[in-house]
Amino acid sequence: MNFITSKENHLFKRWKKLPKEQVLLEGEHLCQSWLSTYGKPKATLISEHAVGKYARYGHQDGQTFILADRLFNQLSSVPSPQGVMYWVDIPIENTQEVLEENALLLDRIQDPGNLGTILRNAAAAGVRLVYLSSGCANPWSDKVLRSAQGAHFVLKILTQQNLSQVIQHKKIPIFATTLSKTAKNLYTFNIPPSCAWLMGNEGSGIEKTLLDLVDDSIFIPQDSCVESLNVGVASALVLFEQRRQSFYSQK
Amino acid sequence: MNFITSKENHLFKRWKKLPKEQVLLEGEHLCQSWLSTYGKPKATLISEHAVGKYARYGHQDGQTFILADRLFNQLSSVPSPQGVMYWVDIPIENTQEVLEENALLLDRIQDPGNLGTILRNAAAAGVRLVYLSSGCANPWSDKVLRSAQGAHFVLKILTQQNLSQVIQHKKIPIFATTLSKTAKNLYTFNIPPSCAWLMGNEGSGIEKTLLDLVDDSIFIPQDSCVESLNVGVASALVLFEQRRQSFYSQK
Repeated sequence: MNFITSKENHLFKRWKKLPKEQVLLEGEHLCQSWLSTYGKPKATLISEHAVGKYARYGHQDGQTFILADRLFNQLSSVPSPQGVMYWVDIPIENTQEVLEENALLLDRIQDPGNLGTILRNAAAAGVRLVYLSSGCANPWSDKVLRSAQGAHFVLKILTQQNLSQVIQHKKIPIFATTLSKTAKNLYTFNIPPSCAWLMGNEGSGIEKTLLDLVDDSIFIPQDSCVESLNVGVASALVLFEQRRQSFYSQK
Repeated sequence: MNFITSKENHLFKRWKKLPKEQVLLEGEHLCQSWLSTYGKPKATLISEHAVGKYARYGHQDGQTFILADRLFNQLSSVPSPQGVMYWVDIPIENTQEVLEENALLLDRIQDPGNLGTILRNAAAAGVRLVYLSSGCANPWSDKVLRSAQGAHFVLKILTQQNLSQVIQHKKIPIFATTLSKTAKNLYTFNIPPSCAWLMGNEGSGIEKTLLDLVDDSIFIPQDSCVESLNVGVASALVLFEQRRQSFYSQK
């Protein structure tokens, strides 16, 4: 193990200012999730006060570092750090040319908490592929990682996607969720086992040019007393209704 | 209209330090929601820069105040205030003795964003009654108000409730959502049109003594690759499945 106590340490300086291809995964749950999918990180960072608890997260090849608490806290994004981080390369996903498996397409989802929730929902519902348009929050930011709870490591997350091109080359139906009452009712609509869902920006919804390309628009019937559901919640309702119809419905 | 430009103004001082029975509702949407349910507020506060836009929110009886932007911003809880607030008395709900209508029971939901989302989901699903245990976030805090998007004004929200007493005097079935695989599957379970749902703390779930009192425990079947769903999302899935079975299912 190596001890780092100076802010002039060259590694500490690198961690403070990571290139966009790298990220520090913070906390036991994210580190565990990384480990079970990708194996060893580039390095394990442990806070001085937490050595006893997290020493087992370290590896035997020298790439484990104990940081003085005050340094560790500078790298942390939470007020009370657990005391363990993995330094990793963000997995690079090759753009999938043709959309032919269950997927989510996200058009400018800006709130990191919402994006994290949507990724977590997708993973829980069994979807493995997510396309993010430009204008979405950075999926590898602290907040998104925290609210997705490890979903990143079971998903293929494609960023900066041209959704209109993705839709034009699709091989399965794509449905948009909208608030329009002329759209079809989620609960009476026959959802095919293979399809993709397009969800739109928190304020302005789905871009009109994309809406024109989808197979059907779907609304979630709700009481008229509130304007709409949060986009994270809406994504769960459509994905789990698809799952219900596939697995639990007698047709 | 009255102009307030000094931080020594007695009203400004009151608004800075409101008693717990009062709250400032911030932003057009919350003010509109209040207006359509409860009518006039105690007072309308408008930021100097936004007078042109929000003058119509004022009332003709002198209880409208224009505040210098720097003062308004001190009362605001967001980085870029829209410029309108209502000063209101928090509606007092008499404790309902007997649980006999569709309801949510929340056991120590601590995150304000989660609580707001749950309230919004309840309103959207048509539930009107929510019991909060002690240990829940304050439902009238800024963050909860913001994420509930006006749901407060169509709900009856009972705080500091002894959930165990509520359950013991219930007249309809109560179901708990759990992660236990021995619980019943939400999608094959016959949900009665009238029932209540018990949701538990983000970390520790539902308190054991409460769990023992419910009629059935229900789980939401999901892919095993992620640990669990966010409690806000879980509340939507159970409430909307209940709604689906009531309105859209051919039994």
